[in-house]
Amino acid sequence: MSKFATVTKRLLLGRPFRSDRLQHTLLPKRIALPVFASDPMSSVAYAPEEILLMLSIAGASAYVYSPWIGLVVALVMAAVVASYRQNVRAYTSGGGDYEVATVNHGPRWGLIVGSALLVDYILTVAVSIASAAANIGSAIPFVATHKVEFAVVAILLLTAMNLRGVRESGTAFAIPSYAFVIGILGMIVWGLVRTFAFGDELRAESADLELVAEEQHLAGLGFAFLILRAFSSGSAALTGVEAIANGVPAFRKPRGRNAATTLLMMGVLAITMFLGLLFLARLTGAVIAEDPAEQLVNAPEGYEQKTLVAQLAGAVFTDFQPGVWYVIFFTGLVLVLAANTAFNGFPVLGSILAQDRFLPRQLHTRGDRLAFSNGILFLAGFAIVLVIAFNAEVTQLIQLYIVGVFVSFVLSQSGMIRHWNRQLRDERDPAARRAMRRAQVINAFGLVMTSAVLVVILLTKFLAGAWISIVAMAGIYFVMGGIRRHYDRVAEELKEIEGEQVTLPARNHAIVLVSQLHRPTLRALSYAKATRPDVLEAVTVNVDDAETRKLVRAWDEHGFSIPLKVVESPYREVTRPVLDYVKRVRGDQPRNVVTIFIPEYVVGRWWEQLLHNHSALRLKSRLLFQSRVMVTSVPWQLESSKRASRRADRSRPVAGDVRRGLFERRGNGDRTREPRS
Amino acid sequence: MSKFATVTKRLLLGRPFRSDRLQHTLLPKRIALPVFASDPMSSVAYAPEEILLMLSIAGASAYVYSPWIGLVVALVMAAVVASYRQNVRAYTSGGGDYEVATVNHGPRWGLIVGSALLVDYILTVAVSIASAAANIGSAIPFVATHKVEFAVVAILLLTAMNLRGVRESGTAFAIPSYAFVIGILGMIVWGLVRTFAFGDELRAESADLELVAEEQHLAGLGFAFLILRAFSSGSAALTGVEAIANGVPAFRKPRGRNAATTLLMMGVLAITMFLGLLFLARLTGAVIAEDPAEQLVNAPEGYEQKTLVAQLAGAVFTDFQPGVWYVIFFTGLVLVLAANTAFNGFPVLGSILAQDRFLPRQLHTRGDRLAFSNGILFLAGFAIVLVIAFNAEVTQLIQLYIVGVFVSFVLSQSGMIRHWNRQLRDERDPAARRAMRRAQVINAFGLVMTSAVLVVILLTKFLAGAWISIVAMAGIYFVMGGIRRHYDRVAEELKEIEGEQVTLPARNHAIVLVSQLHRPTLRALSYAKATRPDVLEAVTVNVDDAETRKLVRAWDEHGFSIPLKVVESPYREVTRPVLDYVKRVRGDQPRNVVTIFIPEYVVGRWWEQLLHNHSALRLKSRLLFQSRVMVTSVPWQLESSKRASRRADRSRPVAGDVRRGLFERRGNGDRTREPRS
Repeated sequence: MSKFATVTKRLLLGRPFRSDRLQHTLLPKRIALPVFASDPMSSVAYAPEEILLMLSIAGASAYVYSPWIGLVVALVMAAVVASYRQNVRAYTSGGGDYEVATVNHGPRWGLIVGSALLVDYILTVAVSIASAAANIGSAIPFVATHKVEFAVVAILLLTAMNLRGVRESGTAFAIPSYAFVIGILGMIVWGLVRTFAFGDELRAESADLELVAEEQHLAGLGFAFLILRAFSSGSAALTGVEAIANGVPAFRKPRGRNAATTLLMMGVLAITMFLGLLFLARLTGAVIAEDPAEQLVNAPEGYEQKTLVAQLAGAVFTDFQPGVWYVIFFTGLVLVLAANTAFNGFPVLGSILAQDRFLPRQLHTRGDRLAFSNGILFLAGFAIVLVIAFNAEVTQLIQLYIVGVFVSFVLSQSGMIRHWNRQLRDERDPAARRAMRRAQVINAFGLVMTSAVLVVILLTKFLAGAWISIVAMAGIYFVMGGIRRHYDRVAEELKEIEGEQVTLPARNHAIVLVSQLHRPTLRALSYAKATRPDVLEAVTVNVDDAETRKLVRAWDEHGFSIPLKVVESPYREVTRPVLDYVKRVRGDQPRNVVTIFIPEYVVGRWWEQLLHNHSALRLKSRLLFQSRVMVTSVPWQLESSKRASRRADRSRPVAGDVRRGLFERRGNGDRTREPRS
Repeated sequence: MSKFATVTKRLLLGRPFRSDRLQHTLLPKRIALPVFASDPMSSVAYAPEEILLMLSIAGASAYVYSPWIGLVVALVMAAVVASYRQNVRAYTSGGGDYEVATVNHGPRWGLIVGSALLVDYILTVAVSIASAAANIGSAIPFVATHKVEFAVVAILLLTAMNLRGVRESGTAFAIPSYAFVIGILGMIVWGLVRTFAFGDELRAESADLELVAEEQHLAGLGFAFLILRAFSSGSAALTGVEAIANGVPAFRKPRGRNAATTLLMMGVLAITMFLGLLFLARLTGAVIAEDPAEQLVNAPEGYEQKTLVAQLAGAVFTDFQPGVWYVIFFTGLVLVLAANTAFNGFPVLGSILAQDRFLPRQLHTRGDRLAFSNGILFLAGFAIVLVIAFNAEVTQLIQLYIVGVFVSFVLSQSGMIRHWNRQLRDERDPAARRAMRRAQVINAFGLVMTSAVLVVILLTKFLAGAWISIVAMAGIYFVMGGIRRHYDRVAEELKEIEGEQVTLPARNHAIVLVSQLHRPTLRALSYAKATRPDVLEAVTVNVDDAETRKLVRAWDEHGFSIPLKVVESPYREVTRPVLDYVKRVRGDQPRNVVTIFIPEYVVGRWWEQLLHNHSALRLKSRLLFQSRVMVTSVPWQLESSKRASRRADRSRPVAGDVRRGLFERRGNGDRTREPRS
C-alpha cells in the first residue's frame, strides 16, 4: 500500500489497534471524577433554571420560594449521595442499582430497575443535548433558531464516534469537566465578590422585564401543586448519581472506598454549584419565563430568552466577554459529554442484563461490535425521536425524565436496607454492627427522601409526560422478560439427561458436494477422506447439462477412487435436490450420521461476497434443519482474503470499556505511564 | 396452528406452493400473444400522442405530417417484426438479442446488448406506468393531479406482487390485453362507421382550441429536425417487440414457428391500432399541445389536457359514456401489465447474463429468492427514481427510452446477417439456401431501417435525455465486465493443477467447542468421535469464571474420556482466544488439519435467531480465514425449528418463470388441464 493510502486510511479510520494492548488499568479518583461525574454535575446547568421556569407560571412573586425549593433538592441530593456511598462500598462489581435490587428483592425487581435505567439513558441523551443546544444558542443565535437540527446533528456525531469505537479517555473528560466546574464556581465567587466586596449591583439582562403570571389566581392546592412541580423539575439535578455505582470496577483499589470518596466530592461540588446558581439568580434578578412571548410583556422586539447560566455569566462578567463565552462554551461541552456518558453506560448495563439472560447473550461478551452497534443505534434513534417530538425543549423533555432514576433510587435504597438486615444477622462484632446500623440508617433516610420525591414526581408529572416513560419501561420490562423465558425454555430443552453417555454413531456417510473440479474440491475430498467415513462419495447437482457433462468427463479422466453421483434438478435448483438426496441416504437408522462437506471460497471484499457462496450458504442453512446431519465447511482462501484477515486482526475499543475497567495500552507494548495519584 | 391463524396466513401469503407441482407446460399462441404482446401493443397508447405533441411545437399546421410520420414508423415496425420472425426461428433458446449478438459478434457486443436491455426494462416500467397514470387521470381528475404519487404507488404494488411471487397467468393477461385490442379497434371502426356511414362529424374536445406554435418561425433544418424528433418519439411504438425473442422457450412446439406467427399477429394488430389512432386523431381534429398552458390560448379556465386515447374515445362514443370508460380503463390496465412484463423479463435476462458470469451466479439458479428479490427491488427503485425525477411525464421519460431498444435491434439484426452467412457456408441444398438468402435480406432490411432510426434517435434525443440512458448502459457494461473478470480470476486461481491427487492429511486434530454441558454438546462430542481424529479434545473459553468452574465440575463428574481444555479470555471475547488456540495446535506442518466442531442451535423464528448462535457465527466466519482448518456445524434442532422447516418446504413461483417455460401444476398432482389450441 502506498504511503498516501496509508495516511488517508489512518485519517479515516484512526490508528489501528492491537488487542494485546488492551489491558486493565484503573482510574485514579481525580480522573474518575470527571469521567463519571460529567452526567450528574452537568444537570446543574438546567435544574435551577427549570425551578424558576415552573415558578414563573405563578408570576415573579413566586420566585421567593426558589431558594427553599433549592435547599430541599440539595437535601435530597445529600441524602442520595450519602446513600450511594453505602451502595458502592457494599457492591463493587459494577452491577449498580440493578444488582442491589436483584440480590435483595429478587430478579423481577431487578428487571424493573434495568428497564427504568435503559429508558433513563435515552432521556439523558435527549435532555443533555437539548440543554447544550439551548446554552450554545444563548451565545450563537443561529443555534438558537435551529435547536432541533443542532441537537440531531450532535446526537449523530456522538453516535458515529461511538460506533467507530472511541474510548472514553480520562484526560479528554477531565479538562472540560474541570473547566466547567471552575467556570461555574468562579462565576459564583466573582459574583459574590463583586456584590459584597465591591458593592456592584449585578443585573441580569432579564432583570427589568415584567413577568406576568400565566395563571393569575393560583392559591391553596393549586399553588402547592405548582411548588411541587418546580421541586420535581429541580430534582433533575440528582440524575447521574447512580451512574458511579456502575463504574466501580474502573476505580483503583480499594474500589468501594475510592468510589465513595469520589461520590462525596461530586456531591459537594454539585450541591455548591446548584445552590450558588440559584442564589446568583435571586441576586441578579434573572427572570426565566415558561412562555417568554406571552409572559414578558415589556420585552424588547425579538427578545430571545437565554439560559439561566448564560444570563448569570452575562451579569457577572459585565465587562469581560471572554468570561461569558468560557462559561457558556464549557457548559455546552460538559452537557455533550454527559450525553456521551449515556452512550457508554447503556452497553455496560446491556452487558449486565445479558449476563442474566434478559438481553441477547452476545451483548455480554466483548467484541461483538454488531451487538454493541445495534445498542448504540437503538439509543441514538430513540433520543433523536424524542428530541424531534419535543422540539428539543428541555422543559418538555424533563417531564419524561427522572421518573426512571427515582424508581431506581427507591428500589436500590430499599434493597440496601434488606442487605444490611441480612448482614446484621450474621455479624457479631459490635463495632461492625454499629457501622452497619449507621449505614442502614443512611439508606433508610435516602429511601424516605427518594420515595417522597418519587410520589411527588408521579403526582406532578404523570400526565405531563412521565406516563410515556412508564409505558416505555413496561414495554422493555416485558420484552426482557420474554427473552429470559425463551432462554429458560431452551435451557430446559437442552438439559443433559442424567448420565447420558457419548455414544459413537453406527455409520458415517460422507458426501462431498462438487460443482467443478478445481483445487477447493480436491481439498474437500482429501479432508473428507481424513475423517475416515464408512461411505464417501462426491455429489453434483445437474443445473446445466453441458457443465455437468464436462465435470463427469474430467472426473473420469482424473481417475478418482471416489465415485461421483449426479443428482438431477429439472428446475435449476441446488438446495432441494441435495436435501432430498441427503434424506434418502440418511435413512431411518437413528444411529446413522451424514456429513456434508462443502468447499467454500473465502474472499476479502464485501462485493466479492455478493458473487460467491450463495448456493453454499442457502444449502447450509437448510441442512441445519435436518437431524443427524453434520455440515462441514472446507474453506479455500483466495488471495483477496489474506488482506481481509489482516484487517480483522485489529481490534478497536467498544463503548463502555472504561466503565468496565478495560483500558487500552498504547505505545510499543509498554504500559501506560501511570498517573501519580 | 389454529384455524384462524391459518386463514389469516393464507390471506397474507397466498396459497402454499409445493415444488413438485412445478413443471413445464407450454403456452398456446392465443395465450402467448397477450402475455408477451402487452408490452409492444400497449405502446400504441402513447406513441401516436407523442408524435402530435412534438409536431405541436411548430403549430397546428405541422399536424399534416402526422400520417406520413405514422406510415414511416409503421414501415419500420413491419421491418422489425419481419426481422424478428427470422430471429425467433433461428434462436429458440430464449437468449434473444443478447444471444444473437454474443454468438455472432462476440461476448463484448453481447454485453452491450445486455446492458442496453437492462436499462430499457427500467424505462419500460417508468414509461408504461407514467402513461397509465396519464390515461387513468383523463377519467379520474384526482389521479391527474397526483400523477407522481399514483405512479409510485403502482410501481410499489407491482413490486410487492412480484416479490411475493405472483405467477404470470395466461388468463390474467389474456382478458385485459384482448379487451384493450377490442376497445381500440372497436373505437376506430365505430369512429369510421359513424363518419363515413352515418355522416356524423366527430369532434375531439380539443378540436376547437387554437394551438399556437412554441417556435414561430421554424423553417428548413429546424423544421426537418422537429419532424425527425416527432418520428423518433413515435418509434416508441416499436419497443417490446424484442421481448418475444426472450420468451421462445415458453411456446408450444414447433417453438420458432409459433413464436414467429405470434409476432406476426402482434405486428398486424399493433400497426393497425397505431395507424388507426393517428387517422382518428386527424378526423376528430384532436389537438395535443406540448405545453398546454402556453400553447392553447383560447382554452377554458382550468383546462386539463387529456391523453389522445381518452380524447378520441370521448369523440367516438359521444353518447355512450361506458364506452369511453371501457377504453380508458383497459388502456390503463394494459399499460400496467406492460410494466409487469418488465418485472418478469428483467430476472430472465439477469439469469442469462449470470449464466455467462456477467452477473452473480446465484441469479442463474432458480430458487434464490433473495437474488431475484434484489433484482426486482433494483428495477423498481430506479423506475421510481425516474418517475419522480421526470414528474411522471411520458414526454420527458420517452427521451431516455428506445435508445437502448434500438441499440439492441441494430446489433441483433447485424448479428443475424452474419448468422446467415455462416449458415450459407455449410448449406448446399438450393431451396434451403434460397430461404436463408430471403431471411438474410429481411434482416438486412431490418438492419438498414433500425440503424437509420438509431441515428435519428441519437441526433434528436441525445441532449434531451438519451445521454442519461447511455451513461447508465456504460456503467452497467463496466460493472458486468468487472464481475466477469473477477470470476475469471478466481477460476484461474482455483484451476486444478494437472494430475494433482487427493492426498490424505497426516494428522487430524479435532476440537469440540463447549460452552455448557448439555445435549447439543454431547451430540457434538459423539459426532466428533465418529470422525476418528488423531487427537480429540473439548475446549471452552472462560468468559465468566463462575460458569467455567461449574462446567469443569460437571465435566469431571460426568467422567468423560475426552479432556476439557479451558482457554482464558481476559476481555470476555470468544473469537480471538479460540483463533489463537487453533493456530497453536495447527502448528506448521503442512499436512496437519484441524477440525472444529461447533454445536449450533437451530431455531425457527426470526427473533429467536437474534438470541442465538452469534458467537458461533462470528467464530465460524473468522475460522474460515485460517488455512488447514475445517469447520463442522453440529446442529441441534429445537422444537420451534420443526415448524420453520415445514414452512421452508413450500416453494413459490419466481418472477420470470413463465418466460422460461416453468409452470406450476395445481390440484392433487394432476397436470394442468391442457387448453385446446
